[in-house]
Parts: sequence; structure tokens; C-alpha cells
Amino acid sequence: MDFQPLLEEIAATLQPELGAQGRVADYIPALGRVPADRFGIALRTVDGEEAHAGDSTTGFSIQSISKLFSLTLGMRELGEALWDRIGREPSGNPFNSLVQLESEHGVPRNPFINAGAIAIADRLVSRLDAKAVTLELLSGLCGEQVAYDEEVAASEAATGFRNFALANFMKSFGRIDNAVSEVLDVYFHHCALRMSCLQLARATGYLCRDGRHPYGGAPVLTDRQARRVNALMLTCGTYDAAGEFAFRIGLPCKSGVGGGIVAVVPDRLTLCVWSPALEPSGNSLLGMKALEMFTARTGLSVF
Amino acid sequence: MDFQPLLEEIAATLQPELGAQGRVADYIPALGRVPADRFGIALRTVDGEEAHAGDSTTGFSIQSISKLFSLTLGMRELGEALWDRIGREPSGNPFNSLVQLESEHGVPRNPFINAGAIAIADRLVSRLDAKAVTLELLSGLCGEQVAYDEEVAASEAATGFRNFALANFMKSFGRIDNAVSEVLDVYFHHCALRMSCLQLARATGYLCRDGRHPYGGAPVLTDRQARRVNALMLTCGTYDAAGEFAFRIGLPCKSGVGGGIVAVVPDRLTLCVWSPALEPSGNSLLGMKALEMFTARTGLSVF
Amino acid sequence: MDFQPLLEEIAATLQPELGAQGRVADYIPALGRVPADRFGIALRTVDGEEAHAGDSTTGFSIQSISKLFSLTLGMRELGEALWDRIGREPSGNPFNSLVQLESEHGVPRNPFINAGAIAIADRLVSRLDAKAVTLELLSGLCGEQVAYDEEVAASEAATGFRNFALANFMKSFGRIDNAVSEVLDVYFHHCALRMSCLQLARATGYLCRDGRHPYGGAPVLTDRQARRVNALMLTCGTYDAAGEFAFRIGLPCKSGVGGGIVAVVPDRLTLCVWSPALEPSGNSLLGMKALEMFTARTGLSVF
Amino acid sequence: MDFQPLLEEIAATLQPELGAQGRVADYIPALGRVPADRFGIALRTVDGEEAHAGDSTTGFSIQSISKLFSLTLGMRELGEALWDRIGREPSGNPFNSLVQLESEHGVPRNPFINAGAIAIADRLVSRLDAKAVTLELLSGLCGEQVAYDEEVAASEAATGFRNFALANFMKSFGRIDNAVSEVLDVYFHHCALRMSCLQLARATGYLCRDGRHPYGGAPVLTDRQARRVNALMLTCGTYDAAGEFAFRIGLPCKSGVGGGIVAVVPDRLTLCVWSPALEPSGNSLLGMKALEMFTARTGLSVF
Repeated sequence: MDFQPLLEEIAATLQPELGAQGRVADYIPALGRVPADRFGIALRTVDGEEAHAGDSTTGFSIQSISKLFSLTLGMRELGEALWDRIGREPSGNPFNSLVQLESEHGVPRNPFINAGAIAIADRLVSRLDAKAVTLELLSGLCGEQVAYDEEVAASEAATGFRNFALANFMKSFGRIDNAVSEVLDVYFHHCALRMSCLQLARATGYLCRDGRHPYGGAPVLTDRQARRVNALMLTCGTYDAAGEFAFRIGLPCKSGVGGGIVAVVPDRLTLCVWSPALEPSGNSLLGMKALEMFTARTGLSVF
Repeated sequence: MDFQPLLEEIAATLQPELGAQGRVADYIPALGRVPADRFGIALRTVDGEEAHAGDSTTGFSIQSISKLFSLTLGMRELGEALWDRIGREPSGNPFNSLVQLESEHGVPRNPFINAGAIAIADRLVSRLDAKAVTLELLSGLCGEQVAYDEEVAASEAATGFRNFALANFMKSFGRIDNAVSEVLDVYFHHCALRMSCLQLARATGYLCRDGRHPYGGAPVLTDRQARRVNALMLTCGTYDAAGEFAFRIGLPCKSGVGGGIVAVVPDRLTLCVWSPALEPSGNSLLGMKALEMFTARTGLSVF
Repeated sequence: MDFQPLLEEIAATLQPELGAQGRVADYIPALGRVPADRFGIALRTVDGEEAHAGDSTTGFSIQSISKLFSLTLGMRELGEALWDRIGREPSGNPFNSLVQLESEHGVPRNPFINAGAIAIADRLVSRLDAKAVTLELLSGLCGEQVAYDEEVAASEAATGFRNFALANFMKSFGRIDNAVSEVLDVYFHHCALRMSCLQLARATGYLCRDGRHPYGGAPVLTDRQARRVNALMLTCGTYDAAGEFAFRIGLPCKSGVGGGIVAVVPDRLTLCVWSPALEPSGNSLLGMKALEMFTARTGLSVF
Repeated sequence: MDFQPLLEEIAATLQPELGAQGRVADYIPALGRVPADRFGIALRTVDGEEAHAGDSTTGFSIQSISKLFSLTLGMRELGEALWDRIGREPSGNPFNSLVQLESEHGVPRNPFINAGAIAIADRLVSRLDAKAVTLELLSGLCGEQVAYDEEVAASEAATGFRNFALANFMKSFGRIDNAVSEVLDVYFHHCALRMSCLQLARATGYLCRDGRHPYGGAPVLTDRQARRVNALMLTCGTYDAAGEFAFRIGLPCKSGVGGGIVAVVPDRLTLCVWSPALEPSGNSLLGMKALEMFTARTGLSVF
């Protein structure tokens, strides 16, 4: 199937709506400066076919999409032990809520809420140079150098009081081993990764390949682990709208407040869409629309 | 693929574990009397192939599996208007919790928690003879007469104070139109449906057939609606263990405290397993194990 | 001290504000019909001196002020055993919330939230003809016949879904012994008691007399019990505004959504004020103002 | 009335129970080292009469009793503006809970939970040298030099992750103006004040004197402010046991996890009792018993 015309059609169809609705995240200046009318879409199939349209090679702040890669590193490094301090259930609460964390004694519900990713960062910090290893992994996965946006990382650190609260709260339950400042430095840098749609479509390729590297084919994760990442994306990957995504789009997705959304069609392809204006849950408004068009037109859905 | 040997092997492998762990629901006598060592499994493919092993033709109380059929009737009768009073997100709370219902003003999180199914029952009551129509639908779907276990229905009514609380609570928010007693009479009867694994594997066949009737092929739901039911099953179908099911089993499932679990492999087959002893979340312990073996051996998973 | 001029002055001062702010409870017609511009105030000292002004002899629906008398009956009948199923702490939540009841397994926080009064009604029902005994107690306490407003009681029963939810919820935890309908019949009748400011100032007289009957002097409660009722009034007696009452007024108070507030000056007097328009917490707006003026002018405060 | 014999009798009566029950706070070493069998009691009347027994001149860590003095300073410095960012209602939740803070957008329920005292510390930091001014106030109030226990302050800072979480959480809602580290430095020092029962009975004297200084008579607070502090103590001063204190003791009290409790009998006296072993809510077990004996024997209660 030739996806190029479809992606172009989606981009063209959404063109008139760009910037008309939704709200660009502006809690830090570097995000608020991004024009609301950007739109990019890219995919890469298991056969290596690529298609992309719009601003598909423009780098953007991947924000919570990075939680996919933290989880991947955590699974590689810790195996089943990763789940000692993190659950696997949808939270039913906003991504940065402390309520559930209190009733569940500092164990985050899943790896895709902030607390979960911070808990993983802590365990990575105990084992490796997490910032460097992440860049290495990602650069390998997408075949070109990936970098942190240090301005974004610094802004996250300067304003991320809620994340400081989450990390200290977990530490008060004995769930964080390292210094909060060190753990959050990794977490904020992960959020500050800068990548394009095309890079993300490539880099997540192991998720539609039973865990195998999108280029070399070496295992990034085991088959079982890769499926489990997909399962977590579907149940927990899109803030408090996971049910809505499953209902309307029907694919494992992971979104970020930078406006990016990665979607996986198992055994077929990975896709990334980017548009900065967000709906109230924190997902890209037109990104969701684009994915809905894509699955409606291709019939590709896990259900 | 010939599934019969696999189902027999699963039944044989689990045989030594029957009744050893977990706890049979005993909040009403009729459930508590069911021997813990029962086990049945049955499937039916899109091609009409059937396989089954163990107590696969023994009727059991389907309990919350009936929420699938309430939802199906609700979608048929109300279309999009069904969602005016019910959400589509995982709850992150036990199935009978009132907490979230309070903060969300009487709108249940999804159709598979008790409050959600009660809300659907209310809307059915306004439109049709819900008890009769349900039996008609199910008898048609599985090709033989299905009936309510009136002893179970009466016990549910006599002891279901939590459900009376949920219904009255929603009514206090103006979300229930009919008399609570009438709505709960339908709800309790739905819970008290008595069906076998084989009957359920057949009756849910429209969910792996893009909504088409497992026998006649006429639409029970539209393609889109059927996918959406599957999506809801995966994100919300198994109490507070939906993430665990997605992670370990990777199929849309709906469970009941009678020990049954229905699973859907879209475009391939529907499967039902039954074993009465439950894990703490309320799902069949060996039912989960059986499903995990099934997906591990067949590689059938949506991820 | 001659209180008559002071009460007249308070009534005169507040006259221009009557009905200007706040909102008369209108969840049942009989309450909604009460003119917003009514105002009455009455007190009776330990020496039997009485003073009253405004609509001080007009009967009104005492609503939650009746929780004082349920508690009094409960303490008399059950002694310390009353506290097996009721706590004594402020709730920090609205009076009809189910949230805390869930996390605390059906044990209401205190006797002055709805769930607490329902729990007491249940225990009274097991022991005596609660509706008759209450009338007898109150008629004796204020020296004239007191009656239920049956229209109000019927309306409460017809619309009190939240209270049905609370009672069923507690029953689901095994905390209610009798049929919900029977328990709520008592509860709704208690809420529907019709008394005037003067009657209430007289009837509550045992609370400023170390438990002794305002006329005969026989013990209604023990000294210790009477002090404890006062303590509960101060910490829990005015919905989610108990801190505000203590802070601004500094007296044990119990309010009702009919617009009445009873206040106790231990060893000195009991006072009742009535004005139907409520502030958002459910307390009489001008009633609070009147009490604040009274304590400011007399210096009577427990602090 | 000569209180000396009574205090000696209370000390003697409780002697056999010292250290037998309850649990000394041990979250920091300096607290855990305090022998469980210490007991001191002291009071000072409005006439300057003093009585004391047991370890009444031994300094101990006053911990949350310091919240009284933070509040006093806050009221003096900010007047009514203090209440812009702090409520006055009982919380119904543990003293260090974040749950309510989330639903109430970073505004602490009252000045006596940790979050409330941290919020006051923040506002003091903006206006004065809070650590120095506090020492000055207290030294003046009790007529001798008061000091911080720097070991305790350092331990609190090294282990107080929950307080870091609370402060960062409030800052994420824009409710903290200064750097978290600076605010908590004041907060931790306040908790680390070291005083004896006798010093505390003297220093709190303004609370039974309508706000006037226990020695000079100059206003520390206005009459109205002093009463309001007492009201807040009664409704919120003893963690999640305020109802229990009001019910059993009937006096405004403020407790600390160091085992101290201060009680006020308005217009009569202030009293401090100390015994390190705590009941589950965090109040001194024998301190509560001593206060109960005191009010039972003297009849001094606000109710």
C-alpha cells in the first residue's frame, strides 16, 4: 500500500483547521513560542517504506513521548524488577495528580504518568549514565544524532514544582533511591528531547517489529516486552483520554504536550503526527483527528 | 488451525490447579454453591469452527459479562445519545466505587462498571421491555433458548445494597429517569443470565465479525460500533485489572464474578473460559491463566 | 442582663438586609415557599429568663437541627455503644458526601452529617417507636405539643435519593440493621419537625444546664454527655463551615437548611435564630450575622 | 484554687503507665532518643500563679506546637490578608495529606496542618527575618532565652521529603512566593524549637488573656484574634483527633509529635503537658489522659 497520497490528503484536509482550535502548551516559553499552525505526519512500515507530509522533518519537543523510551530502557535494564515500584493500570486521574499516589503509598499507577516516568528515571540513575544512554539509544534507533533542547530542560527544571512535589512525595514513601535533583535532571532532559515526526516514526519502529531494531534487526526489547509496551500505550498512553483514543482511533498511542502523538500498528507500521494545539486532556487536537482519519481510511485498527 | 487439541491441552494443564487458589464469589448463596474446581473453555471462529473442552456446556451465572449485551442493546437503541450519560474512560477505581461518581456528578466512567450498566438499564427501560428483549437477542445470537436464573436475580435484589446506593446516587444527580426498583430489576436480571462457555463463545461472535450476526450475518452492530465495544473491553472490561489483562493477555476481554471471561480476537474468533475461583480484583484466576496460555501458544494478540 | 433590647436591636439592624442575599432551600416545594424575608430570634437563660424578637414564634422546618435530638435520644438509649458505628471527627466534606463513607467502610464521621443521623435512626428503630418518642421528648422539653410537617416528610421521602444512597451504602457495609425504608422514614420525619425559635431555645435548654431538663430539672443527659453534645456542635454542627463558626461566633451551634441555627452558651443560655436564606455551605446567612452580633455585643463566647 | 496538688496527683497517677503504651516518634534520631517514660505538666493562671510537676522544666522538641506561634506572627504581620491563602476549616485528613490540597488548588485547609504552617512561613519570609523574630517573640513571652535545636532542624531538613512535596505542590499552584528551600528552612526551625512545659505554659499566656502579654500586658494579639486562635485550636489543633479532644477534654489544644500538648482555659490559665509516647493520630497518649483528668477534676471546660 502506498501511504504517501493518504498522508498528503490528511495534511491537506486539516490545513484549514490549523491553529483554529485548541491551545498550545505555554507553561514554559520555549513551548509557547511554537506556532499553532504547524502540522506534520510521517510513518515507516515494517518493510522500510516511508511516507511523510507537512512539517514532518521539523524537530519539536517530544515531552511525554519520551516516556516510551524511558520505559524501554527500564525494561531492558531491570526486566521484571521494574514492576516492583510501578503499576500497570490506567490511573483514572490527571497525569500529574498526587491523590492516587497517596492512597497507593508512592507507587505510581503506570509508567506513562509523570510519577511513573520519574520512578523509572530514578532506577536508571542507579545503573547508568541515563542522559547519555538515552541519546545513544535514540540516535541508533532513528539513524541520526538526537539531542536535548537544553533551554527546554532548564525551563522544565525552573518551573516544574509539581514534578518536584511528585518526586519528593515518592521519596517520602521510600520509593526513590537517588537525590531528587539528580532524578529530575534526567526526567526533565527526557521531556526536552527534540525530534521530528519522521525521526519518531523511525525510532519507534521496534514496537511494530516484535521488539527488533528498525534498522539492524537486533532485539531492542523481546517480542513479549514490545507487545506489553503497546498494551500499556493503549490503556495508559494518552493521559486521561486513553479510553477515548481506543474508542475513536483503536491503536496504541503515546502523546506529549509538545503536540506529538506516536501510534503503532502492530506488525505493520509506526506513525507520528504533530500539531501543537492541544485538547483539554493534553493531547494534540488535530493529531487525534489525523489519526482518526488514518484509521478510518485504512481500516488499520487493533480491534 | 485446529484449536481443539490446544483447548484440551489447556484444560489438562490447569486440571491440577483447579480449586487450589482464589476464592469463589459467595455474596449470594447461589454463587457460593458452585464447586471451585469447575473449568470450561470454548471458542468459535469467524468460519464457524468450534472447539471446546472441560465443562464447556455447563451453564453458569454470567454476571458482569452481561454488561456486554446491555451495552450492545444500548448502542442499538440510542446510538451516540447513549454517551450523554456514560463516559468511556477506565475508572482507576473498584467496579462498585461511589467516589468517582460523586466527583463526576453521577456520570459513570464507562459502561462496564456497575453504575454504567445501571445507567444503560435505565435508558433501556424507557424504550423497551428490557428483560424480554435481552433474552430474545441472546437466544438468537447463540441459537438456543437463554434464560434468567430467577434465584440469582432474587438474591441480587435482596442483597444488592451497593447497587441500590449507586442507582439512588445517580438519581440524586438527575441521571436516572425511571424508578430505581424498576431499573435495578433489569440490572439484576442481566447479572443473573445463565449461559455456558459454548453459548457465550457463539453469542459474542458479532464482536469478531465487524458486528455481523454469528449465524445470519445481519448487522447486530455496525462495524464501527463493534470495534468500539472491543476497545471498551480492552480498556475497561476486567474491573481494576484492565491494564494487567492488556499487558499479559493482550485481547479485549469481559469478565464476571461468576468466573467467566469472554475474549475477542478481532476478525478471528471469540472465546469463553470459565472457572469460578477469583483473584482479588474479581476476575477468574485460572480463566486468566488459560487466556495467557492461549495467546502465548497461538500468538493471537492485538498487539 | 436584660437581653430583650439586644435581640430587638439585632432584628432591627438586619431588617433592611432580609431577603437581599443568599438563597432559600428549594429542593422541596414546602421549603421553597417560605418567604426569604423572615427573621426570628429567641433565647432562654438558665434562670428561665426569655427574650425574643421578630418571627420568633413562627414554626419552621428545623431540618438538621433535629440531628441534635436524634443524638440525644441515641446517647440516652445506647450510651457508649452509640459510638460503635459513628465517629466524632469533623468530616472536611459536604454533609451528604459518600466519598469519606467509602474509605471509612460505612462508618459516618460524626452524628451531624446525614449518614451519621441515619445511622442513629437505625439504632433507635431497633429499640423504640422512634417517631413517637421524639415527639414526646420534644413536647416535654419545650412545654407544648410539637408535630411533624407531614407534607415535608413526604417530599423528603419522594426526592431524597441521596439519602437513600447513603443508607443503602452503609447497609452494604453491614452498618444498618433495619430496612432502609423504615430507617429513612424516621430520618425524614426528624428533618420535618416544625418548631419556632422560641420552642427551640426552650427545648435545647438542657445543653446549657449540664444536661438537666429546662423545666423539671430531671436529667435529659448526664453532665458529661451534655458537654459532649456541645463539643460535637462546635466541631461538626454547621456543615462544612464549623471552623468558620468557631472562628467568627465562638459558640457551639447546630444549623438546618430550613434557616434555623441553635447556639449554646454553656451555663448561661440557649438561643435560636431563624432566617431562611442560606449561604453556600447551607447555613442561614443572616442567622450567622445575628449570632456574630450577639457574641460581639455580649462578649459571650466559649473562647 | 491551688493547682499544685492536682498536678502532682496527675503525675503520680500516670507514673505507672509511663512508656507502657504508645510510640515515641522516631522519624528523626533526635526524637527517637527521648526516653518514653518522661512526663511533665505545668500551668500558669491569669493571676500569675504557677504550678508544675514531673519533668516540667526539661526542654523538648515542641514540633507542631510551634504552629501556634507561626500563626500568631502571621496574624500580627498580615492581619486579615493572612486568610487569602489559608482556610479555617478542619481537614478531615491526616496532617500531611496532599489529597485535599489538590482538590482545593493549593490552599491549605487551616494553619495547623503542615501545609498551612508552610504557607505562613512563606509569607513571613517575605516580610521579616522569620527565624530571629520567632526567637525574640518566644523569649519575650516566657521571660527567658529560647533556642532552636539545630540537630533537629537539620534532621527535619534531611528527611522531610513530604514537606518538600507539600511546599513544591503549593508552589505549583502559585501559592508560595519564596524559594522552597528558604521557606522550609524557617518551617523546619520552627518545628525544632526546644522548650519546656513551664516555658510553654508561660509563653502561651496571651491566649487566656484576650491577647495580652503574659508579663507586660501589652497586646500580642487583639482580643478578637486571640479568641480566634483558640477557636482554631479547638477545631483543628490536634491532627485528625480534634473531635476526640473536644469530646473528651473540651479545651482548645495544640499538640506536637514531640509529645507536648498546650491547652487553654480562656480567661483562666494555660497549661502544657509533655509525654513522648504517641497515640496513632500523633498526639501524646498520656498527655491526653492527663488533660482529661485535669478537666474532669476541675470542671474546667469550655462546654
